[in-house]
Amino acid sequence: MVNTESDPRFQRSQQAILSAARELLLEKGPVAVTHAQVAERAGVGRATVYRHWPRADELLAEAMATVPMPLLANPTIPTRQWLTRELTTLARQLELDDVRAVATTLASTALWDQQMDARRAQFATILADRLAGALATAQVRGEVSLAMPGRDAAALLVGPIYYRCTIEHGPADSTLIETSIAAIGTWTAR
Amino acid sequence: MVNTESDPRFQRSQQAILSAARELLLEKGPVAVTHAQVAERAGVGRATVYRHWPRADELLAEAMATVPMPLLANPTIPTRQWLTRELTTLARQLELDDVRAVATTLASTALWDQQMDARRAQFATILADRLAGALATAQVRGEVSLAMPGRDAAALLVGPIYYRCTIEHGPADSTLIETSIAAIGTWTAR
Repeated sequence: MVNTESDPRFQRSQQAILSAARELLLEKGPVAVTHAQVAERAGVGRATVYRHWPRADELLAEAMATVPMPLLANPTIPTRQWLTRELTTLARQLELDDVRAVATTLASTALWDQQMDARRAQFATILADRLAGALATAQVRGEVSLAMPGRDAAALLVGPIYYRCTIEHGPADSTLIETSIAAIGTWTAR
Repeated sequence: MVNTESDPRFQRSQQAILSAARELLLEKGPVAVTHAQVAERAGVGRATVYRHWPRADELLAEAMATVPMPLLANPTIPTRQWLTRELTTLARQLELDDVRAVATTLASTALWDQQMDARRAQFATILADRLAGALATAQVRGEVSLAMPGRDAAALLVGPIYYRCTIEHGPADSTLIETSIAAIGTWTAR
């Protein structure tokens, strides 16, 4: 790959593959980002996709890092139900082998790869900011009285799902999700 | 490495290195498991250690998988203080680069390596069993009324620390730890 990076055809096919991966990710979700589907969408041979990204999870990581991340992006009211919905979506995605591979590759590769570390930091900051923002607003609105700093919400809400999926390899069910939502503060019954 | 695995000298030096790594891990903790210290303890050259385990985190993972894990092994009363102590120890260890590397390598390599997957499963089961057992006893003793199944305790208590250390790369402080301990049930004041 190093030898051919300056070749304009190499760069063109790389861009076409990445665009195709992003489109598939946005239209059909992470499961659609396979070598076969990306090759078909990009109009290149499957071998070309393999040459650029030997591993599908790394192509998915690249695509994920460069599309807008919808997770926790648009809070709705009631906040508690919104959290349940968003965290359930996250749990279902982390049960997919490819997404789990991206998440764990991100954490481990970030230890020695600066580019991956920047993505890890970006991902962590976005989730922490969104949760802190939504919960601060919910508190002002009287929906919840937070039991901890809003910046801890990501670790307390996403952490259990992440551990369940990547270390325990089990399903993050609604009991786990609801327990963690109850943990972050006192929710007003409505 | 594949070519020399049948060589008895290769196997002897591998065993010596692994024994040295285990000794250092038990005596001085994960930070001591470096190529240099392991070589010295095993009485082999540093290059020999690199030949067997090019990466120190993989040698540490191997050593960790084959020594008794003290984490959460011996519950004491009051259970709540014991949890605080054990989870704080875990948090301090996961802040070390090498331990974080082992934890994240375990999760990502387990996806395609059966041996690593067995270690991941073993590690997850031990922690979940120990926590479930200690909390069941604490509940019988009247120390706590659990808000969730005991098998969820590992994800709810270890998950936030794991996420904070591996994804957010920040310190898992006492607020985070105490919030997660409070989350698993109603603790009786004493």
